Amino acid sequence: MTAASSKLAILQPKGFPQGTPEFEQRRGAILEAFAKKVPPELRLPVDLIASPPLDVSNIPSTCGILTPREVDITENYDASGLAEAVAGRQLTATEVAISFSKRSIIAHQLTCCLTQWFMDDAIEQAKELDDYLEKNGTTVGPLHGVPISIKEHIPLAGTYSSQGSFASIVLNEKDCYMVSILRSMGAVFYCKTNQPQTIMHLESTSHYGRTLNPFNIHLSAGGSSGGEGALVAMKGSVLGIGTDIGGSIRCPSAFCGIYGFKPTSYVLPMKDYLAHSFSAELNVLCSTGPMCRSLRDMDLLMRSVLAVKPHLLDQKLIPIPWTGLKTSNTKPLKIGIIENDGFIDPQPPVKRAIAWARERLSDPKYSDTFQVKTFKPYNAEEAWSMICRMYWLDGGQLAKDDIVSTGEPILSLSDWIWKEAKPHGMLNAEDVNQLRATRDEFRYKFVDSWNEQDVDIVIGPAFVGPACAHDTALYWTYTSLYNLVDYPGVVAPTPIRTEAKEQYATDYRPLSEACKHVKELWEASNFEGAPIDLQINARKYHDNELFGALAVLKDVLELP
Amino acid sequence: MTAASSKLAILQPKGFPQGTPEFEQRRGAILEAFAKKVPPELRLPVDLIASPPLDVSNIPSTCGILTPREVDITENYDASGLAEAVAGRQLTATEVAISFSKRSIIAHQLTCCLTQWFMDDAIEQAKELDDYLEKNGTTVGPLHGVPISIKEHIPLAGTYSSQGSFASIVLNEKDCYMVSILRSMGAVFYCKTNQPQTIMHLESTSHYGRTLNPFNIHLSAGGSSGGEGALVAMKGSVLGIGTDIGGSIRCPSAFCGIYGFKPTSYVLPMKDYLAHSFSAELNVLCSTGPMCRSLRDMDLLMRSVLAVKPHLLDQKLIPIPWTGLKTSNTKPLKIGIIENDGFIDPQPPVKRAIAWARERLSDPKYSDTFQVKTFKPYNAEEAWSMICRMYWLDGGQLAKDDIVSTGEPILSLSDWIWKEAKPHGMLNAEDVNQLRATRDEFRYKFVDSWNEQDVDIVIGPAFVGPACAHDTALYWTYTSLYNLVDYPGVVAPTPIRTEAKEQYATDYRPLSEACKHVKELWEASNFEGAPIDLQINARKYHDNELFGALAVLKDVLELP
Repeated sequence: MTAASSKLAILQPKGFPQGTPEFEQRRGAILEAFAKKVPPELRLPVDLIASPPLDVSNIPSTCGILTPREVDITENYDASGLAEAVAGRQLTATEVAISFSKRSIIAHQLTCCLTQWFMDDAIEQAKELDDYLEKNGTTVGPLHGVPISIKEHIPLAGTYSSQGSFASIVLNEKDCYMVSILRSMGAVFYCKTNQPQTIMHLESTSHYGRTLNPFNIHLSAGGSSGGEGALVAMKGSVLGIGTDIGGSIRCPSAFCGIYGFKPTSYVLPMKDYLAHSFSAELNVLCSTGPMCRSLRDMDLLMRSVLAVKPHLLDQKLIPIPWTGLKTSNTKPLKIGIIENDGFIDPQPPVKRAIAWARERLSDPKYSDTFQVKTFKPYNAEEAWSMICRMYWLDGGQLAKDDIVSTGEPILSLSDWIWKEAKPHGMLNAEDVNQLRATRDEFRYKFVDSWNEQDVDIVIGPAFVGPACAHDTALYWTYTSLYNLVDYPGVVAPTPIRTEAKEQYATDYRPLSEACKHVKELWEASNFEGAPIDLQINARKYHDNELFGALAVLKDVLELP
Repeated sequence: MTAASSKLAILQPKGFPQGTPEFEQRRGAILEAFAKKVPPELRLPVDLIASPPLDVSNIPSTCGILTPREVDITENYDASGLAEAVAGRQLTATEVAISFSKRSIIAHQLTCCLTQWFMDDAIEQAKELDDYLEKNGTTVGPLHGVPISIKEHIPLAGTYSSQGSFASIVLNEKDCYMVSILRSMGAVFYCKTNQPQTIMHLESTSHYGRTLNPFNIHLSAGGSSGGEGALVAMKGSVLGIGTDIGGSIRCPSAFCGIYGFKPTSYVLPMKDYLAHSFSAELNVLCSTGPMCRSLRDMDLLMRSVLAVKPHLLDQKLIPIPWTGLKTSNTKPLKIGIIENDGFIDPQPPVKRAIAWARERLSDPKYSDTFQVKTFKPYNAEEAWSMICRMYWLDGGQLAKDDIVSTGEPILSLSDWIWKEAKPHGMLNAEDVNQLRATRDEFRYKFVDSWNEQDVDIVIGPAFVGPACAHDTALYWTYTSLYNLVDYPGVVAPTPIRTEAKEQYATDYRPLSEACKHVKELWEASNFEGAPIDLQINARKYHDNELFGALAVLKDVLELP
């Protein structure tokens, strides 16, 4: 192996703090071990990395590394389509695994979306599946031959995971329950994807590097499942698994223009997702869910996993059978449109996307189908302040101690998200209990407000902007609200893209200091090319009803 | 009003500690206010109170205070039957309210089961319901005219509630959500029932007095919903509402030989049940549920409340539709019989009841219907130690401070239940998080063990004995286990009664120090006449499946 192959050039337009020399040495060794697995023929030209375009999303298909068939496989199928094509023997699991492994490593060089990559292992898994199909004439399950990418912290047998710090890296000997279900259904695993320090930023900069937005490399891919967001948008994955306790599935999905679904808590299994439990979950619950390219793929993932009745093994789970896109809703569907949350007015292209959706839905020809009204979420500002405290019942100190223990530098977004809780330090049990009571009171007020406004679903922003410049994902208000109240939420792409030089309305008046700051952030960067997703939410445990509504919205909102 | 009427003689064979003179004076004033509402014609003869029989359960029907029709109304109908008779105009709501109000105040003089009693108000509610039916020809709902008794801590508009201490007594201006649902369906409220200091004993001695077991006054009625247990067994109530975080519905129901159901958490609404949230619920969840005289009445309560879709207002609730007794189960029903939990072997009559059930179910004629096997619950000893710590994340100090603040004496069972947590004092948030992780690990092991033993339901003891002598309800292992793992549980009466001089088997060997202590407790008292309930449990969220199983068990286990 040549010296060149022990270093893989990754596009990184903006640096981040360095750790101690010991830390940087150990970090370097990990990156080197990764690089050594990447053969020369899968490496992009060094000059491309040195002077990249703003939008790198088309490079995988034009760089010449992929064959036309590999481009076709990675671009023209969704997961449902791949499953069908493999089951029908139009494609082999092996060629699918090769195509996505190759495309993922190209995507990684352009966006730093991966943390681990194991093409050889994927090919081996895929060959076994092909042999099985050949021998038995049937698939092993509904995901036979579908490659699935996995967020870094989620245990996958034989790979490493971390809880958002270098110190927390461990080798996992066993799959967590979710992965074992996916594997038993024929999923092929080929990579793990980047997440931020603490797993608690809405961007994805970790000891593995900074994940870029494929459509504008000066913007973030979002977080904390940002590796998934970038990888799926680069078509290096057709279906990824993320987690969301404040927006970590929805934010990167929205930043990257793909689908993302945060179910109500305890709908999908998360058994063994984290080696060390996170005290935030005493009051704010995390969810896991799909990130993908089509509505029906979210449904496929949900339907397949819930078909095995995981609640019989993981008794945290609610045994509500999945009906998904086939769920029938009452007619007309009552839709609340969120122009803003009363705390932060979204940036111009997001407002444009909301207006587009409203206009479409308000077309008189749909008057029997939809009843459209303006919706105001209950007290988003209070929600934001409350949830920030609930994330860090220890004031953030344990996470901080864990990070610095290896000489890892503290990133600015870590300090940012600890800020609200830090002055309170380590809470005692009664403080936690009081926070819980405050949460419950808020939840009751929220549901009362929802009922008074009489809506089935709401459609609103997924974030204060289309994406954000690096290190500026500060306000998670549009997503974290639904973690606080534990409502399911889907983000879905729109045809809207951010244009150059879009401006705030002349009559704009800030709703808050944060609102003003968001305008300043808009004016300080170029967001050109960033896609816009909308967020659609339903009541707690109304995950099926949410999907039933999406089925009705599909055509009018041009949902692929 | 004469001097005599300001004091109501209540049977109290065993005293309990006195508080400070100021406390006793304030307590006396409350008891006096209660007494003043009780007219002479509803008072039992003083000599009966002075020298009572061991079994006071028949006194209400024989004392001459009730008319034959009132005896009939209170004895020969269950709640479903009363609802039907009132709807069909065989009975008026008013005469039903009068009958139960009268019988309840007789029951109170014999067992100290009430904390408040408001016959006049009940008659007023009932008259309105009769007028409504007369005028509209229809009932207001499925509970039209059904009297329902309510545990002291549950807010009912215009009455007092307390959280288990004198200091926590408040006047409630509004019904809590559950009560408002029951009221909207036509329930009539006429009394509130006793619970213990801290609401965390499996007996019911409070500032209102000590609740006695109707079948043997030297035994406890159980707790913490002990007032309900005694009142329903005395037929002074047909349907009561209790709460259970360690056995507080199931224990008193079993001690008193009635039905009690603790659903999985968040099945029935508990919004506003407690003014001050209880930190135990960060890790162990409380449930509310019915205490009554028939299988179908538990079903009636569940069906009626869940029919209003309370999850749309109280979003803690799981929206699983109620199918209850109509739920079909797979055949044969796999039944695990719990002879003992591996920690404490139950006292002789409980073992006799288990053997009776096993024999019945094992009859070859049921071999297609039931598959009977021995079941061993996973690590009951660890569960007991863990849950005792989880109840008091502050070491019990806040509850203690609250109690002593008014000069109220600390009862021995309060000290007992604080014992395990006390040395740990006030936990910090990370300790609570660790306890949560330990709980989750236990739960996963429990469900794995359940799945390995391959059962649909288990049938076992409800308590280590049939009931207990006063101040000795020390070991809650058979009930609290199902709070720790959050499984639903019903206790159901058997035809078995405790006989005089039942003895431990000669080959008895203690399973633990606690087991040995339970034998000593047995030998120290006379349990004659105590009824025996069995406990039947199903998996978490399998409340419907549990009721489906009960429907199949009804005839063979002689369940009324």
